[in-house]
Amino acid sequence: MRIDPVSFRPIGIIHSQHQNTERIPIQPVYAGDCQAQVEIFPKFADGLRDLDGFSHIYLIYHFHRVGAAKLLVKPFLQDVERGVFATRSPNRPNPIGLSIVELIRRDGNILHIKGADILDGTPLLDIKPYIKRFDRIDTSCDGWQEEIDEATAQMKGRRK
Amino acid sequence: MRIDPVSFRPIGIIHSQHQNTERIPIQPVYAGDCQAQVEIFPKFADGLRDLDGFSHIYLIYHFHRVGAAKLLVKPFLQDVERGVFATRSPNRPNPIGLSIVELIRRDGNILHIKGADILDGTPLLDIKPYIKRFDRIDTSCDGWQEEIDEATAQMKGRRK
Repeated sequence: MRIDPVSFRPIGIIHSQHQNTERIPIQPVYAGDCQAQVEIFPKFADGLRDLDGFSHIYLIYHFHRVGAAKLLVKPFLQDVERGVFATRSPNRPNPIGLSIVELIRRDGNILHIKGADILDGTPLLDIKPYIKRFDRIDTSCDGWQEEIDEATAQMKGRRK
Repeated sequence: MRIDPVSFRPIGIIHSQHQNTERIPIQPVYAGDCQAQVEIFPKFADGLRDLDGFSHIYLIYHFHRVGAAKLLVKPFLQDVERGVFATRSPNRPNPIGLSIVELIRRDGNILHIKGADILDGTPLLDIKPYIKRFDRIDTSCDGWQEEIDEATAQMKGRRK
């Protein structure tokens, strides 16, 4: 079955303090003190109405500075090769990033966020509200992540 | 600032029982009994290694049958116009879908899932593991969603 490629146009840009792919926290939970601004292009600004009622939002973006895709990767938290779809590695066949960040406030078309694990200049593709009744899941297994204790995850995740 | 469009190639197809956009559950939490199969194209199958250790996964996909984008939409759960980025409506500037589904098992390049709120034939763009320490967030505000009681959400969400 042949399926056509899909093309998206960025709706904004993420401005953060992270210039260096080697030092960026690997997930929002390890980037608690990292504030950033999400600039939505003015033509999309009307779509932000009501967003500031939510404490947390998903940002879906393009890993624009990533290298080649790999099917097997060593995740940041563990020195073991894993299937890329079982990790959050950016080196994916489609380099789509997903971060759940805290929304501090909105000034017009600018969102002020906390927990930014995202490179400066990243093209933003979509925003969705994080909704507890849909998204807060009580998983029964967390795969290889269960092999990593919380202290190790915190230390490696911050990459400081 | 001009930013180039981004192009992605589907990594697979989602096969589900949902043929009708009008009757599909609006979120995985309202689609508990809907099983589906996710077919990953063989060239990406090696990337699935270790995924079956996770009870829940994110599917990121293309809303391939959606109509025109709108900046203001009436969400399924409420008859009030909201900014599209404060909703999970498919009529978004970039029609990217995000579902957290239960992974039942994997047979080679086929994933058997539960909680499918996704149309049959949907092109899949990415898979990520749902990881409790990253993704299970205790939100402090859920915006307009807080105006909807759980019984109403269940009834409207299932769309049966």
